[in-house]
Amino acid sequence: MSDSNRIKEQVAFCIKGELWDQIPKLFEELHPADIAETINHAPANTHNILFELLNDDIKPDVLAELDDQAEADILEELTDEEISDIVEEMAPDDAADVLGELEERSEGILGLMETEESEEVRELLQYDEETAGGIMTSDFVAVQASMTASEAIDYIAELDLDEPLYNLYVIDLEGRLTGWIQLWELLKKTNHGMTLEELADKETISVRTDADQEEVAKIASKYDLSSLPVLDANDRLIGRVTADDIMDVMEEEASEDIFKLAGSSDSELEDTSPLQACKARLPWLLITLGTGFISSLILKSFMNHLSIAEIVALSFFVPIIMAMGGNTGIQSSTLIIRGIALGASHSRRIMKIITHEIIAGATMGLICGTTVGLWAGFVIAKEGSSVIAPSYLALTVGIALFSAMAFAAVFGALVPVLLNRAKIDPAVASGPFVTASNDIFALLIYYGITLLMIGATHLA
Amino acid sequence: MSDSNRIKEQVAFCIKGELWDQIPKLFEELHPADIAETINHAPANTHNILFELLNDDIKPDVLAELDDQAEADILEELTDEEISDIVEEMAPDDAADVLGELEERSEGILGLMETEESEEVRELLQYDEETAGGIMTSDFVAVQASMTASEAIDYIAELDLDEPLYNLYVIDLEGRLTGWIQLWELLKKTNHGMTLEELADKETISVRTDADQEEVAKIASKYDLSSLPVLDANDRLIGRVTADDIMDVMEEEASEDIFKLAGSSDSELEDTSPLQACKARLPWLLITLGTGFISSLILKSFMNHLSIAEIVALSFFVPIIMAMGGNTGIQSSTLIIRGIALGASHSRRIMKIITHEIIAGATMGLICGTTVGLWAGFVIAKEGSSVIAPSYLALTVGIALFSAMAFAAVFGALVPVLLNRAKIDPAVASGPFVTASNDIFALLIYYGITLLMIGATHLA
Repeated sequence: MSDSNRIKEQVAFCIKGELWDQIPKLFEELHPADIAETINHAPANTHNILFELLNDDIKPDVLAELDDQAEADILEELTDEEISDIVEEMAPDDAADVLGELEERSEGILGLMETEESEEVRELLQYDEETAGGIMTSDFVAVQASMTASEAIDYIAELDLDEPLYNLYVIDLEGRLTGWIQLWELLKKTNHGMTLEELADKETISVRTDADQEEVAKIASKYDLSSLPVLDANDRLIGRVTADDIMDVMEEEASEDIFKLAGSSDSELEDTSPLQACKARLPWLLITLGTGFISSLILKSFMNHLSIAEIVALSFFVPIIMAMGGNTGIQSSTLIIRGIALGASHSRRIMKIITHEIIAGATMGLICGTTVGLWAGFVIAKEGSSVIAPSYLALTVGIALFSAMAFAAVFGALVPVLLNRAKIDPAVASGPFVTASNDIFALLIYYGITLLMIGATHLA
Repeated sequence: MSDSNRIKEQVAFCIKGELWDQIPKLFEELHPADIAETINHAPANTHNILFELLNDDIKPDVLAELDDQAEADILEELTDEEISDIVEEMAPDDAADVLGELEERSEGILGLMETEESEEVRELLQYDEETAGGIMTSDFVAVQASMTASEAIDYIAELDLDEPLYNLYVIDLEGRLTGWIQLWELLKKTNHGMTLEELADKETISVRTDADQEEVAKIASKYDLSSLPVLDANDRLIGRVTADDIMDVMEEEASEDIFKLAGSSDSELEDTSPLQACKARLPWLLITLGTGFISSLILKSFMNHLSIAEIVALSFFVPIIMAMGGNTGIQSSTLIIRGIALGASHSRRIMKIITHEIIAGATMGLICGTTVGLWAGFVIAKEGSSVIAPSYLALTVGIALFSAMAFAAVFGALVPVLLNRAKIDPAVASGPFVTASNDIFALLIYYGITLLMIGATHLA
């Protein structure tokens, strides 16, 4: 590891000094994934130069690992012939990813490829990028159940594959998946002349081409599978999703969830322009803006019932009540959203989490409410004269904070659950909705309690 | 898939009706991972009953898949002898996980196990849970470089392994890793009497026992590896991390990052008590509380320079300015934190993201500032009389919102970068720090600009 870091630094140094002829022998010592990383980090105008410094036999591996921006920079400078030569040597799923990015050029390139390869890729290109079909490779090994273990091993020994092979799939005459066996288990069974019919595990776990990639990753992770067979609508085996793609999906989905919670989009991790970033984020900001307008109107209408001096005294505590309500709500909705994402949609489990949130919210509200209440009383008392008696103000602020936090906890927990029931992705909708609603409710609660309490002082 | 869901529903129904004798034949049709899921979701007081309904040969597989709470419920009711019988049949890493949870009971159970198994487990128990040593299994296959391909295959065929075998590791006489080869590649090379010295790939990628599990997952994902060899301090091969554990780590680390951003802890996904939840979340809430106190004091000191009527007019817009600044800051720090987590710590890349954030923040600030400014002017103008001229108020609020958002975007982007430079985890520290600081700065900017602008009106 440390060795490759040192070499990468040397490459970076050579790029800075434009010492191009030093780079090829440094690249030779690096793994394609590290070469790709070096190119990704290099200035955009050197992407193409660096790629041209690579040996032809390593170009396909490096291209498969580049990020979208570097890939686009390089492909732009290559002719269709050059691309078709590289793409032919890639695993079919990686080739499909590259051609998928090239859009109108892809037909021309496919035409230049060997028929067999281009058909495989064309097949894969028809699936939505974020489905099992979009991430699968057509590079798998399937045999008939009548084959013996040693025949199967001889068959495998003859094959030329682009991706690691761990499992052998067993199919019937129509190509439907009927069983599977791990390669190393097959090795142990070669001596007895048994067929795969007898040896294979009939309990197959598979997905359809249209399964969402998140679902694919969940199934692989749950059943501890390092590759997952993919079936078409007629149950015919047409591909497999390999462990490396599953890991990529897990990373991608985690990013997506994190960005949704922040009211943004994971496409921002790619090199989008600031304007595209604005587009991705503005919806949430506009919801917040709308909420802000409503908050202002609420404040206005409450102020009609209070004296101007009371308004001033109370307005000190608006930031604190809004911030605390907001944080409590985010903590509680994040907990539930992640719980749902990890599969805790079972109603008993959800009820338990909600109860948990109510108790936690109320407890924290009590602690923080008391603290702020005491502090409010102390600040006002120090002031000397005040329109509201310090003890009443303390009580008002304390109760308001407690109520706002307890409410935010429950509301933050309930919204994702209800959205999930209504089949709306809780991660994308909860963030803005919970934050915005909590702002409004925190203010309503604060001024509502204030009016009640101050009404009480007036009467006292 | 749909079949197993139907069976799981039937089991849940039987649990409700306490129809225990119906359950074993339903369990027989389920995968251990699905049985574990069913038990996890069942009421706590049935965990032990359900586990006892299982065939002895499936108990180890189910136990390995249970969540911590269900596992603890079940282990509590089992004798040391029963646990040792089950644990002996588990993969060493899963066995170590179970015994690690049992703490003081583990010594007694280890004493009851076969010496060979207990030594393997004892070996694994010494490593920190969240390191390569803590997630690796000692169940791997290593051979000497002098072995031929067909000898190696015969050797593998004799082995009894608990976990899937995909790669064969090659070691020298001291047990140091010198190469590796995939099983299916080995199969293709059996005919020529070549040794592993000639056949194996010398470019090994490995981790040390003390490598952080997040690092392990990153390496596996980067180099597309489905298992990763683990070396001790003397470079001796002592274990491997398998794909299923890598997927678990990725899920765990994603949860951790998400919870850190929300100011909470991923331990909350386990069944913690509400009081433990409060403990995990209070630090952030207390920071927010502290910030709130500072905000109140800032408001107070600004108010000394404004007339009471001006204060009231301006206080309408406090919620909107705080909320918009807060959201912009969160969006921008989330982008950077995730970028850093995914490895974009390269300074050129980071500078690019920061520039990007500055432009995006300023653009969004301009759009939102103009909208709010116009709206502020309109609301106040409708009011008829006002202490501040509508056009001036509109301009003040608009400029303040623009400044607060642009500042929040830059600040939100810079803080994680600086924390990362200072070797502090940006995810855990940025959330509270950025949110709290943005609240304070948004208010400072708002009232600062107000004072400047109103100073200007007074002069005008």
